[in-house]
This record gives sequence, structure tokens and C-alpha cells, in this order.
Amino acid sequence: MLERKLKFEGLTFALLTISDRSYRGERDDLSGPELKVFVEKNGGRVVETAVLPDEKEAIRQKLMELCDGDESPEIVLTTGGTGLSPRDVTPEATLEVVEKEVPGLAEAMRAESLKKTPMAMLSRAVCGVRNQTLIVNLPGSRRGALENLEVVAPVLGHAVEVIRGKISDCRQSAHLHHRHQGEKKP
Amino acid sequence: MLERKLKFEGLTFALLTISDRSYRGERDDLSGPELKVFVEKNGGRVVETAVLPDEKEAIRQKLMELCDGDESPEIVLTTGGTGLSPRDVTPEATLEVVEKEVPGLAEAMRAESLKKTPMAMLSRAVCGVRNQTLIVNLPGSRRGALENLEVVAPVLGHAVEVIRGKISDCRQSAHLHHRHQGEKKP
Amino acid sequence: MLERKLKFEGLTFALLTISDRSYRGERDDLSGPELKVFVEKNGGRVVETAVLPDEKEAIRQKLMELCDGDESPEIVLTTGGTGLSPRDVTPEATLEVVEKEVPGLAEAMRAESLKKTPMAMLSRAVCGVRNQTLIVNLPGSRRGALENLEVVAPVLGHAVEVIRGKISDCRQSAHLHHRHQGEKKP
Repeated sequence: MLERKLKFEGLTFALLTISDRSYRGERDDLSGPELKVFVEKNGGRVVETAVLPDEKEAIRQKLMELCDGDESPEIVLTTGGTGLSPRDVTPEATLEVVEKEVPGLAEAMRAESLKKTPMAMLSRAVCGVRNQTLIVNLPGSRRGALENLEVVAPVLGHAVEVIRGKISDCRQSAHLHHRHQGEKKP
Repeated sequence: MLERKLKFEGLTFALLTISDRSYRGERDDLSGPELKVFVEKNGGRVVETAVLPDEKEAIRQKLMELCDGDESPEIVLTTGGTGLSPRDVTPEATLEVVEKEVPGLAEAMRAESLKKTPMAMLSRAVCGVRNQTLIVNLPGSRRGALENLEVVAPVLGHAVEVIRGKISDCRQSAHLHHRHQGEKKP
Repeated sequence: MLERKLKFEGLTFALLTISDRSYRGERDDLSGPELKVFVEKNGGRVVETAVLPDEKEAIRQKLMELCDGDESPEIVLTTGGTGLSPRDVTPEATLEVVEKEVPGLAEAMRAESLKKTPMAMLSRAVCGVRNQTLIVNLPGSRRGALENLEVVAPVLGHAVEVIRGKISDCRQSAHLHHRHQGEKKP
């Protein structure tokens, strides 16, 4: 495991804002830019941002384009479209493109948010891997998106290393992980 | 968000008891009537109750009939058939009819029940949306059904408003929700 | 419910180690033997052990062979292949063979492991029932496998009784379970 001074050092991200109103220019996209600031502040590199409507096919196509390209980002964060509104289809689009679901990421985000509001039960966020890219659905609200990203942030670097085959052996990585953790503790 | 003095004020429910023995009249349906009392005590209106056998096709048909009609209830609660017995097929029937799963509701019910008994791990309850109706699987035991319903009760009204398009904007609803909560606290 | 002095008394297990390197003889299988010791120490009987490569088709075939035979074990524990590496396909193989998923077992294992390390979010373990056998995916590391098995251990005996139809009635079993628990407490 590479030593990282910052959580996202060396990681590449694409950020997708999914919102009909932002797509039509009826509302500023607040979550996307705020995620960008957070990612960059933590050493990550944002290689693409886009605003999409709440259309399953459009989301699906964009996710495939991002994950299947030669220069695919290591992580795609989506914000928006994870609720129960008839137009909310981000989880369905994500489920259609991922080859492997990673349910623990979504469970952990919901469990942590649940400590703050029971409404967290209603997030239908899905996380998974397509090709060599990890896709993480975040809620549409600025605060919700950032809070959820903070929950999974500690494991994203490790997840990417395993997905990209830089670590092939989970026992080895667990060992390194624990040493690494040990060094960081006071 | 409508002001609600009671948790379920203005909400309409259908209650399905799923049990071979109750269907054959070999055992009284205890959970169904107790759910009815609880729902009505909290201001909800029960528009239909039924007892079904543990048959996937019968459950599937009934769920579709309820959710696809002109006067569909806002919420369908099922009780029974969520365990590991060969006859338990409520989750499978539910998965076949929902258009959107809402995994956080089932996760929250299990996580809360787990504080009381490790057996909570074995509930396979599924929650999701079909058309404009939220379907929530509850366990078959009276106590389990009520305890699980209490876990999701605080978010059902909001869920229904979003599903029915009375709130299209999650940011707005979050705002209203928090104001609403603030007003209720002492 | 049978009185059990030991957690796994009377239960039969098959243990599958899933690891390319152990299969090729490049690394000793440590988790499999350690699981065997733990199961036997707790009164369980290990009727089969095997080491498989990280190949979905091989895992799928072995799971079906175990679950569909006349002398099927009551429980199959797998260790390995639950992570995000391109070769990790144990959850996908398991999902293809189970007739009923039991998501609460996997959720509980992750939630408990999360108290020790955030990396627990990345376990994609799946649990479910095929025919009359419960399949439980455990992580590949020795410590992870044992810790996760301890989380679900208290419910495995009850799960098997329900799956095998020795208890048909969840209300009855809940009653017995609570009496049973009461007797064990000081």
C-alpha cells in the first residue's frame, strides 16, 4: 500500500451530478462543485465532471463510457437520484452497469447517516465495480453527499489498489493496512 | 410536508397476513389485527386486510392488484413468510413486483431488532416501491411485526409524499423535515 | 429446538477454501484448517473440505454438488474470494446458486467487523439457502473468517432447523428460542 499523506492522494475521480433541474439550468449544481473541492482538498484529482438528467439510459451510458475508456477514472462519484421520487433512477442505472456490487459501502453510509436522521433509511444508494472503476452513489443534498463520502473515504484508496490489481492478496494488504494504521496513530 | 399530529395521519394502508395456517383457519391471525390497531391508533386508515397462504404466485398477484389499482393504498404491510422455512416466499414475491428496492428500510429493521435478538439476522424482509405504493415486509410474529413497524414508522409519511410526487425535491424536503423535527422537540 | 451444550452440536459442515494460490499449492491454506478446528471444538462435524481456485464456474459446480446431494451438509462455509480483486468471484457464484438470499447474515457480519476496521465495508460476502443447505461466505483471512463466523454462530443451529423443516412455525420457534436463552443465562 502506498503511503498517503492525504486520503485521496493519487486517486482519480469523475463526478456526476444527476438532477433534472440542474441539467435544465433551473437550479445551480451545488453538490458537484462541493464534492470537487472536498476531493481536491484531500489530494484527489477530478478528471471529469458532468451534469445529467434523471434518465436511466443517460446515466447508464455515461457510466459505461467513463468505466470502459482507456483512461477510466479510478472512482466515479454520483450525487442525486437515489431517493423514492418517480424520477429517481440512479441506483437502477448503477445496478445495470456494475459487474460486482459492493453492498457494504452502501450499508455503512446508511448506518452512519441513520445516527443523524431516520430519513437515511430512504437512500437507495448502490456501490459497485465496473471494469477497473469503483462507482459510488451519493445522495443529492450537499450535506448528505459530503457526509456519505466521508464514511467511505478511508477505504477508497485500498479498494482502488485491489480493483486495479496492485494488491492481489488480501492477507498481504490486511497486514500492510494494519501496519499503516499503526503508524498513523499517535 | 404536511403537519402530522400522529405518525400515520392521512396515510392509507393495506395489511396482508401471509401464513398457511391462518389461511386454512388452523390458527388465528394475531399479527394482522394487531397491526391494524397500531396503524389506526397512529392516525392511519386501513383500507384492506387479507390473509394469504405462503404461495409466491398468490402473494405476487395480490401485491400487483393492490398497487396497480386506481385506489391503491399508499403503503402495503405484509406480515409473515420472511424466514428460512421452505414455505417462506414473501421476500421473493415482493422482489418480483417492486420496481425500486429500498434496502435501507430492511437494513434498519434488522439492525434495530439485532439489538434484542441475534435471530433478527434471519429475517429476509424486502421493502420497495411498485407504482405509487410502498411495500414493507414485516416478520410473522406479533411482537416482531410491531417492533419492526415502529423502526420505519418515522419515515413512512415522508416516503409516501416523495413516491406520490407531492415533494419532488429532496433538498426542499430535507429542509422542511428538519424544521418539522425542530418544532416537535421540547 | 434441541438443547445444545455446544454451539454447533449435531450440525454438519462442508468447508471450501477459495484461493488461486492455495489451489496451486503456492500458499498453505490456513483459514480452512482453522475453521475446521473451530467448528469441531464447538461440536460440529466437518464432512467435507476442499480447496478451489477463484473460478466462478468451479465454485458454482461445487456448491451445487454439495447442496443437491443426498447427504448434503447442513451448512457450507466458504473462505476467500469475497473482495474486490478481479479474480474475486465467490459472491457471484453464491448468488447464482442460492434460491433464497439471507441478507441479514452478511449485513451483521459486516456491521460487526466494521467496529474493528473500516475495511469491513469491502467484504462482498453473500449468504443464502440452496435446497436444504445454508451457504455462508466468509473472508479469506484467518482472523476475518473466524471473527465473521463467530458473529453468525448463535443463529446457525436455529437456521438449519427451520431450513430442514424441524420447526415449521416461527412463532413456536421464537417461543422456544426465548425459553432456551433464558435457561442459559445465569
